[in-house]
Amino acid sequence: MTKTPASPEPLTPPATRRPGGRSARVRANVHQAVVDLVAERGYGTFTVAEVADRAGVADSSVYRRWGTLEALLMDVVVSRLTDRSPMPDTGNLPGDLRAFAAKAAEDVSGQGGLALLRTVVTVLAAGPDGEAARDRFLAARSEQIQSMLDRARARGEDPPEMLDVLDVVLAPMYVRVLFGVGPLTPNYIDGLIDRLLAHRRR
Amino acid sequence: MTKTPASPEPLTPPATRRPGGRSARVRANVHQAVVDLVAERGYGTFTVAEVADRAGVADSSVYRRWGTLEALLMDVVVSRLTDRSPMPDTGNLPGDLRAFAAKAAEDVSGQGGLALLRTVVTVLAAGPDGEAARDRFLAARSEQIQSMLDRARARGEDPPEMLDVLDVVLAPMYVRVLFGVGPLTPNYIDGLIDRLLAHRRR
Repeated sequence: MTKTPASPEPLTPPATRRPGGRSARVRANVHQAVVDLVAERGYGTFTVAEVADRAGVADSSVYRRWGTLEALLMDVVVSRLTDRSPMPDTGNLPGDLRAFAAKAAEDVSGQGGLALLRTVVTVLAAGPDGEAARDRFLAARSEQIQSMLDRARARGEDPPEMLDVLDVVLAPMYVRVLFGVGPLTPNYIDGLIDRLLAHRRR
Repeated sequence: MTKTPASPEPLTPPATRRPGGRSARVRANVHQAVVDLVAERGYGTFTVAEVADRAGVADSSVYRRWGTLEALLMDVVVSRLTDRSPMPDTGNLPGDLRAFAAKAAEDVSGQGGLALLRTVVTVLAAGPDGEAARDRFLAARSEQIQSMLDRARARGEDPPEMLDVLDVVLAPMYVRVLFGVGPLTPNYIDGLIDRLLAHRRR
């Protein structure tokens, strides 16, 4: 019995789910090396060999586990979203949405966040591997948002559709960061949430 | 007097404004070579030398006029937006917005459009050159949208802010195309316009 009580959806490769041990250390070190290299130099400027060197592992370990640099990059992005950004649970939908949007804004703002957002978009352009990675990213993000909306419905609130959260809240933040249009202020984010909630089923 | 009666904002390098002649032919051929290469292979897969070769011009001509591959790519994108997508003028704001959004959806959908959208985003990641190119892209797009909104105001309509058009209409379309979330159907686009018009100054 080496398996942990995993969450129902295997969003990351099975090997990464083993707690502790050499495998987990390798994953943590490789992820950290990617985050550092993206922040320092940006996407497209480093190789698997450089990641492996900085993480103190063999190139073959990286290739065996992730296959390609693009798959590794997307694993890092999905991991940051799912492991490091647990969904808020404030007891009501507007509170959850505001906390979620503020966290999402924080994730994509700043140098590291912008680099990762650009990584996602760039990886999406990388053909079939990119599409598989994109689907994993979307599945992870969708599951998070849906759980928040399901809780609202269970409380008797009237949540919007999941894709409306993408269209009204996340898409403008992503595009503004990518295009460098103004900072994502709390006031701006509140306006997005107001717009979303004003357009619930009428 | 070699200057043409140019529009007020020099969105493209002065050399490209000369109508006809060798300079215009070079520009047209180089642009077409880029469009073809992006559609065939995607961004990041070709060099200035390959563009020049396909366009039948010297590498040095490309470097002298555009400086970098990234600047050239962004010039192509801006040119497609401004030269090939004149703003609609239907006589009323909802009509203009619907025609504008339908054209924008067409521009970013399909293989060629997606490749160009990815190009914009990827070029944005390319440091200071990317930022200059991004600002030109934004200036071109903003000027188009603002002219449409100004006409609406002159007619006595109550147009939304320019950035609301970005947030509510363009951003969701861009993100859905980049993430591969469903097709941009006429019904979907109408919903975006309805959302934008419902949120005009209250």
